[in-house]
Amino acid sequence: VDPLFEIGLERPAKGSREAARTLYRQLKAAIADGRLAAGARLPATRKADAFFGVSRNTAAEVYGRLLDEAYVVSRRGSGVYVAERPSAPSPPADAHGSAAPDRRLNPFWLGQEVTAAMGFWRDRPGPAPATSDAAPADFRPALVDSRLFPYDVFRRVAAKQLRGLERRPASLKSPQGNQGNHSLREAVQSHIAVTRGVACQAQDVLITSGAQQAFDLLARTLVTPGRTVVALEDPGYPPLRVAFAAAGARLVPIGVDDEGLIVEQLPPDVGVICVTPSHQFPLGVAMSMRRRRALIAFAREHGAVIVEDDYDGEFRYDGSPLEALRTADAADVVFYVGTFSKCMLSALRLGFIVAPDWAMRTLTAAKNALDWHCSTPVQLSVAGFIAEGHLGRHVRRIRDVYRQRRQRLLEILQGDFGDWLTPIPSFYGMHVAAVAHAELDLDLDPLTEALARENVKIHALDRYYLGPPTRAGLVFGYGAIDPPRMAQGLSVLRQALRLSAMQPKKAASG
Amino acid sequence: VDPLFEIGLERPAKGSREAARTLYRQLKAAIADGRLAAGARLPATRKADAFFGVSRNTAAEVYGRLLDEAYVVSRRGSGVYVAERPSAPSPPADAHGSAAPDRRLNPFWLGQEVTAAMGFWRDRPGPAPATSDAAPADFRPALVDSRLFPYDVFRRVAAKQLRGLERRPASLKSPQGNQGNHSLREAVQSHIAVTRGVACQAQDVLITSGAQQAFDLLARTLVTPGRTVVALEDPGYPPLRVAFAAAGARLVPIGVDDEGLIVEQLPPDVGVICVTPSHQFPLGVAMSMRRRRALIAFAREHGAVIVEDDYDGEFRYDGSPLEALRTADAADVVFYVGTFSKCMLSALRLGFIVAPDWAMRTLTAAKNALDWHCSTPVQLSVAGFIAEGHLGRHVRRIRDVYRQRRQRLLEILQGDFGDWLTPIPSFYGMHVAAVAHAELDLDLDPLTEALARENVKIHALDRYYLGPPTRAGLVFGYGAIDPPRMAQGLSVLRQALRLSAMQPKKAASG
Repeated sequence: VDPLFEIGLERPAKGSREAARTLYRQLKAAIADGRLAAGARLPATRKADAFFGVSRNTAAEVYGRLLDEAYVVSRRGSGVYVAERPSAPSPPADAHGSAAPDRRLNPFWLGQEVTAAMGFWRDRPGPAPATSDAAPADFRPALVDSRLFPYDVFRRVAAKQLRGLERRPASLKSPQGNQGNHSLREAVQSHIAVTRGVACQAQDVLITSGAQQAFDLLARTLVTPGRTVVALEDPGYPPLRVAFAAAGARLVPIGVDDEGLIVEQLPPDVGVICVTPSHQFPLGVAMSMRRRRALIAFAREHGAVIVEDDYDGEFRYDGSPLEALRTADAADVVFYVGTFSKCMLSALRLGFIVAPDWAMRTLTAAKNALDWHCSTPVQLSVAGFIAEGHLGRHVRRIRDVYRQRRQRLLEILQGDFGDWLTPIPSFYGMHVAAVAHAELDLDLDPLTEALARENVKIHALDRYYLGPPTRAGLVFGYGAIDPPRMAQGLSVLRQALRLSAMQPKKAASG
Repeated sequence: VDPLFEIGLERPAKGSREAARTLYRQLKAAIADGRLAAGARLPATRKADAFFGVSRNTAAEVYGRLLDEAYVVSRRGSGVYVAERPSAPSPPADAHGSAAPDRRLNPFWLGQEVTAAMGFWRDRPGPAPATSDAAPADFRPALVDSRLFPYDVFRRVAAKQLRGLERRPASLKSPQGNQGNHSLREAVQSHIAVTRGVACQAQDVLITSGAQQAFDLLARTLVTPGRTVVALEDPGYPPLRVAFAAAGARLVPIGVDDEGLIVEQLPPDVGVICVTPSHQFPLGVAMSMRRRRALIAFAREHGAVIVEDDYDGEFRYDGSPLEALRTADAADVVFYVGTFSKCMLSALRLGFIVAPDWAMRTLTAAKNALDWHCSTPVQLSVAGFIAEGHLGRHVRRIRDVYRQRRQRLLEILQGDFGDWLTPIPSFYGMHVAAVAHAELDLDLDPLTEALARENVKIHALDRYYLGPPTRAGLVFGYGAIDPPRMAQGLSVLRQALRLSAMQPKKAASG
């Protein structure tokens, strides 16, 4: 039996670019997780249409990329075979991959793509810095500076709320209780009305353990396993992909340009469309009004829903305010996901979903099955923190801090890195992406690995792609780094770029 | 096409009792979720062997039960048909069931069995008591009396831990961080070593949002969707069933007798076996040593794993101490699930899994994908509470309170209810089950509904069964009720039983 028929390869989407991307992703995944074993022969490119439904040229392009990345080897006159020990282009820093698979475990969680995505924030293995002076220059995105958090205020609010809980013990009994504490849902409603222009009621809000649980919960309620097609921005946020993949979604990566998600690329059978319209993760672009309208219209026309991940919408610096996608008009098709990880502390593990009316009961049932509800003392503490006005004050204060870091970062990037990188304009959040000049053909993944050894943590754009990367570049988070350390880290980067640009790519890497 | 072939009915297990149970469950589920539509004809009982692989008598018994419960109707000389509007034997108090299904939602969560199980603790709809004097006599199991919790001590510990968090911010970076805070895992390890004789190390402990998330996490990592067979005690804990069903498990209910789970009934292809060996939920029996040894041996022989739900193991009153199933010898096949919902507060949402070495990395990866980790302030507060000795003191104190309630309950049951009910002996926990005398043929489900209207909340054993109930009876939780209210509630029950026993069952209910 031909192994390709055993691994259940999906038919790639229409359009040769789309098709190449899909086929590449599927073959890579099948090789990585062992469905396509070492030594298996891939079909000849002249049979590409019969096997994959793509043109010969498209298959040749995909095989070429897999050859470059050593997933497959070519034997003259014989064909293309899965390589003996496939080496991923960017092996993740991941303690999980080394565990021997056990047949008692659901193989999904053993896949390399899963462990890589969930090892997202983990450091690559290596000796830890000996002293705290050696704190890394940490440019990873989506981290925040917990030193800025007003712990004293929070502690006072938390103690007060715990005293209240003693007098009126929270009850598990009502459905409202399981949807989240009412005072927190009211606080969320007023917070997002002010900061994001989202008009909703407390009954539209479901409290989750951070945005990650919101993604998991949405995946489990919106995806019918093996059937539902889920469109994701590519590049995008890997842990979101894992949540949907784990629920049995059929993932389709969709390109992103200067106007955000390319709505025209959405397949007609899509059921769920995940977007970051305010501040695309990780590129940083804002979705244009034209695209927003097209996206809503597309979802309505095709009976799809939209998951809007507004992970750092509170932090706007320039440009005109952009509404969230979830306006009152779009309340029937948009699931708005917010989090307190950026504007407060990730360690609290609190986020929320503003859901359409027709879905809330089902979401609540699923939340109950997952863990009943979020920890009551934490919900009450955050509710009190918001209701007493502390969150508003805190956001204004740290926005000023991040604005200064951002200006300093952009000054350095534009001043010292103009030969290599061009920052992508963005107006929100706590990171900036910069595209590498194409003619330099920089090999950024080994470069970021070398930097990590020098205690400078910067992600290459590569690691955010599901399909083949369409842009090379770097992501500069400034949430967890202060300006002096930032300047030091960037000067180490500059040295490394200078060295790297001097050597031809292929010679340097092998 | 015969609808039965479309709904993918599984072949029932061997043994006529097993077979009847399985067939009943499958047909009921197919009717409840619409796979078997109203008006569909069931196969004639003489074709039972060909259709279902069961005897004609077994099929007749199953059809009889479905007729009794109005899932199907019989047309003379024509056969048995799915009823027009099937009415469940005990329609759940459940706001979810009324939502119109939307094709954008995963139909799993719309199934009546799911919403019923997850509405487990919810009150039936009806007017709420006007004043706090009208607090219900609440005999529902697995509730605890939050008035006994030392909020003042907890508040002090929590404030101290938050100050500590300020000095050394918790980090998301290490895999250990995502497996749970190290100080809490150490505190759990020493707590269960003392109270439950479980010898493990902090690295064997994974912190979860209560036992419910532990079940969900285990279901998602141990179940390969559509393939893995999961054996559950019947009667058992409905929210556990939902977690495994949602992950795509093939559920097999297994009977329980006076020695606990009937190991001899386990099918050879079982992958996961869920048990409550200390205090079977809800019957209360302890699993015998003979059965424990047989269960471990069975799991080893068949490559299965065991999920031990030790939900109230801290509360032992009489009898010789019974070790947890998860001894050092069984550390390779037992996943031990504990919770702080009983010994502290359910509202904290903290529980844990003691997992075999070979599974911990995968469990941690999945926990990360579900919600990264549990709320850090809550983890630290509970860790401090345990480390400072408060948990031990608290458990000793409330165990005395519950012991007194339990004695009072047993006195009344044995003194005033001897004509109707016999308590099942048990030595642990916060509830007692009592079996109704068979010759009375009491119809307990309508009786508990009538009691609920009189503000007395008691569950019939019926609602804990997945297959056809094999014992009729009532469950008396004493976690959330003090002795005076208990006595009042039981006298209302006694009146109702007296009335009910005077009327023949069928005449009373129809």
